[in-house]
Amino acid sequence: MVSKQISIKEIIERIVPVDDEWNEKAKERTAQLVMPTRAMGQLHDISERLCAIQKTLKPSLHRKAVIVMTGDHGVVADGVSAYPQEVTGAMVQTFLAGGATINAISRHVGAEVWVVDIGIIPELNPGSLEGGDQFLVRKIAKGTANLIKGPAMTRENAEKSILAGFELASELFEKGVDILGTGDMGIGNTTPSAAIGTVVTGKHPEEMVGRGTGIDDNGLIKKREAVIRGIQVNNPDPRDGLDVLSKVGGFEIGGIAGCILAGAFHSRPVVIDGFISTAGALIAHILCPFVTEYIFAGHRSEEAGHGSMLKYLGLEPILDLGMRLGEGTGGALAMGVMDGAVHVFNEVLTFEEAGVTDKD
Amino acid sequence: MVSKQISIKEIIERIVPVDDEWNEKAKERTAQLVMPTRAMGQLHDISERLCAIQKTLKPSLHRKAVIVMTGDHGVVADGVSAYPQEVTGAMVQTFLAGGATINAISRHVGAEVWVVDIGIIPELNPGSLEGGDQFLVRKIAKGTANLIKGPAMTRENAEKSILAGFELASELFEKGVDILGTGDMGIGNTTPSAAIGTVVTGKHPEEMVGRGTGIDDNGLIKKREAVIRGIQVNNPDPRDGLDVLSKVGGFEIGGIAGCILAGAFHSRPVVIDGFISTAGALIAHILCPFVTEYIFAGHRSEEAGHGSMLKYLGLEPILDLGMRLGEGTGGALAMGVMDGAVHVFNEVLTFEEAGVTDKD
Repeated sequence: MVSKQISIKEIIERIVPVDDEWNEKAKERTAQLVMPTRAMGQLHDISERLCAIQKTLKPSLHRKAVIVMTGDHGVVADGVSAYPQEVTGAMVQTFLAGGATINAISRHVGAEVWVVDIGIIPELNPGSLEGGDQFLVRKIAKGTANLIKGPAMTRENAEKSILAGFELASELFEKGVDILGTGDMGIGNTTPSAAIGTVVTGKHPEEMVGRGTGIDDNGLIKKREAVIRGIQVNNPDPRDGLDVLSKVGGFEIGGIAGCILAGAFHSRPVVIDGFISTAGALIAHILCPFVTEYIFAGHRSEEAGHGSMLKYLGLEPILDLGMRLGEGTGGALAMGVMDGAVHVFNEVLTFEEAGVTDKD
Repeated sequence: MVSKQISIKEIIERIVPVDDEWNEKAKERTAQLVMPTRAMGQLHDISERLCAIQKTLKPSLHRKAVIVMTGDHGVVADGVSAYPQEVTGAMVQTFLAGGATINAISRHVGAEVWVVDIGIIPELNPGSLEGGDQFLVRKIAKGTANLIKGPAMTRENAEKSILAGFELASELFEKGVDILGTGDMGIGNTTPSAAIGTVVTGKHPEEMVGRGTGIDDNGLIKKREAVIRGIQVNNPDPRDGLDVLSKVGGFEIGGIAGCILAGAFHSRPVVIDGFISTAGALIAHILCPFVTEYIFAGHRSEEAGHGSMLKYLGLEPILDLGMRLGEGTGGALAMGVMDGAVHVFNEVLTFEEAGVTDKD
């Protein structure tokens, strides 16, 4: 068990790069499979990296889980979202009832779904909700403060949000979860994510701010202004992950960063979803650059700026289907493809086993 | 039951466009699902087209099958492939033993695999082979003739290959298969496929001829020459699908074209794989342009020219993972994503059911 008293500094000190030797061994096996050289393209890269992360030549994605981190955002007061703030809490209940998109996709790929209140406004009680046994309350605060006017949260709360994500993900890994997908719900959360993307990648906010759930032209202008102003007012230091998270972030983004640190810490793969999860990955990456070796990018989101974030992290998305929902949906769908890669690696015969002549 | 005596002309006459009314009804349901407008991007297009094809608002991909059409090619004598011709028959046995990539991916997505000898050189007996109950012998001839020297097959045999594919696929659809993937095996078959692509799309052979299983620069030159020469010698008529198939095609390509016609005929979706399957789709499309409405492009292959073929057919690939194996692998893997789209369409609650406020 990971002690609940572990600090972010201690976590980071214990994260090591993925073992190249296992990657090489896995590549050797791939070369023997009865097909032309690396004919399954990116599927080989996926299975080999899984081998390296899991330190095995029998990779397994048997037990899959998705954590949906949910939080509210003070910046919603500035008209940055097409939906009212109440939708965050209502969607939490939809997740627990099994009726949201992440539930449908998770059933399809065989992943369990855990929903975390890490900072939503409403007080929802697991005991009195349908599906409440999948609901974990780790509320840091009732939503963030408005990042236009000052820091979204204190540095202490930023740290708490990361540690909450780390601890929850660590528990799942310790219970035998082989792969974790990160998801999010929080009306307004593409605004802090765009702010993080702008600060970390150095891209212009024009490039990084998109329409999120579907705001109109007027809303898009407000949202760009909010991002620009939030960065001006707070002046976050791009080399300090906690500074960026606390000043222009969100609790669910911190929670996701914590999940990613947990993957690297426990040597388990983490699949990130779209724009918000990738903002979390950017925070985790500032704290510890090795984390990207444990991250799989589930998909490229339709949200403006997501491609630039992935490029910055050096991650190649598995899917590119014009999706832009969040909740963890793109990551969960990609788990199916990753599972396919594992089946190929584990089950395809070698040229020798099959008795087929190789070209050499 | 479809009479085995049906002619290609009769098949084509009975194929109708997909029903737009069901597509509209499906779009209405999508608009009600508890997510921002069409936030699942291409997944919505997939599920709605499945609704239209299956004429339902409860689409199902429950029973999945892949047909791997296998044939040999006279043009192999001209050094167009990196592998010897014997590999075709050896791979047939690997498919039946369950040890090839298409088997691994099909197990992963829950698809049955049928292997068809539509024109391989060796005489393999289903009764004496491991897994022989999944093997169907519909041999038209022991490989095609060398297309550099004249037609690959007679017009009569081209017709027979299409009807063989049509009949086998029809039997599967009549037994309750909801979705069919097309696959291929045949050393040398990227050469006839490139020739078909060149003739039908009007692109230059430079663009259409790739490295297939991995020929070297010298082999690539020979392969381009073979395609150019095959077209010069035979002068196929791009408006006549049987002419193109017979002069520069292959038996498995005809069989795949027949499977595609069967999908459109029975109003069932067909997922094509990469370069060879798409050459089959080009043949089917010349015969009956409506077929593309029933086709899903599983992936974009790494093979040069495949993107141009898909563009010509107006098909958007589901996956783009640098795969270039054939066997039906890209199509089978994409079935998993399509199944995800169906789960979303069927299972996600509406805003009203979920009690969540929509933005309107």
